[in-house]
Amino acid sequence: MGYRYEVRLSGSGGQGLILAGIILAEAAGIYDGKYVCQSQSYGPEARGGASKSEVIISDEEIDYPKALKPDVLLAMNQSSCDLYFFDLKPNGTFIVDSTFVRQVPTTKVISIPFTAMARKELGKEVVANVVALGSLVYITGVVSLKSLESALINRAPSGTEELNLRAMELGVQLAKAYQ
Amino acid sequence: MGYRYEVRLSGSGGQGLILAGIILAEAAGIYDGKYVCQSQSYGPEARGGASKSEVIISDEEIDYPKALKPDVLLAMNQSSCDLYFFDLKPNGTFIVDSTFVRQVPTTKVISIPFTAMARKELGKEVVANVVALGSLVYITGVVSLKSLESALINRAPSGTEELNLRAMELGVQLAKAYQ
Repeated sequence: MGYRYEVRLSGSGGQGLILAGIILAEAAGIYDGKYVCQSQSYGPEARGGASKSEVIISDEEIDYPKALKPDVLLAMNQSSCDLYFFDLKPNGTFIVDSTFVRQVPTTKVISIPFTAMARKELGKEVVANVVALGSLVYITGVVSLKSLESALINRAPSGTEELNLRAMELGVQLAKAYQ
Repeated sequence: MGYRYEVRLSGSGGQGLILAGIILAEAAGIYDGKYVCQSQSYGPEARGGASKSEVIISDEEIDYPKALKPDVLLAMNQSSCDLYFFDLKPNGTFIVDSTFVRQVPTTKVISIPFTAMARKELGKEVVANVVALGSLVYITGVVSLKSLESALINRAPSGTEELNLRAMELGVQLAKAYQ
């Protein structure tokens, strides 16, 4: 069986995690040349402030396109942390936005205040998703930073490219500092 | 087994079909209260000008989140028409953008010049995806027009809400005229 890497990005509906999933998927699929499936589900499971976006990256064709045991979990709010932590693969990478996640069920966690830092450093909370993506990619190496940058420029709404690149770079710097 | 409805939106990378898939998924999942899985794949299958975005809508939990035999196929360019037509369910609904699709392998097709009409009526080719979505929803009734409108307003980039609503309405009118 080939390499298969599962990423779950979770948080509340307004935190931009679907877009973050698409950017990561395009970095891996278009710029890194991998097989990728990106998905999100809606339904009773998505209620209660915990929604998720998943990216599966593989060296070979993907038979089952949803995460079974995520290799990395990003939780941007408390509900998603509570709901999804126990799905994480043993020794998987667990990253939380400490702006909103106050209680973490493990000490093996990378805790970074993405939203607070996006506000403080860039004046825009709305790019907290991209800050988190920069950290996640730096920490896991799941795609190259160059591929992430290309995908980000391609997907960023016109006129926001520079802000998004600064958000990504902030995420990389935070990951270096907090790890 | 419950009701399961499979939608495949296909075309070239720049035609906005991922966003169209997300809008349709949110219309069904958030506003119509269905179970929904929305996905896109990247890899060798996505090369050559045929990319796809899928939406699975169900009354019960979705076990397999990709389309097996689409109930409806939208093809926005020739490559995607050629590649995906034969996956369509027998008697499934087949809709093409006749601006770009010149050869159709069946007479059972709804052929509408979405891109040409978006350019002519709205001055913006970029909303051809939303014009097509308006037609698709009107023809299939897969979600209510009201839910589509709510999802569209929620997802449209700030400042483009009115343009997008006009594009949706154009799609509905075209479907009435061309059907």
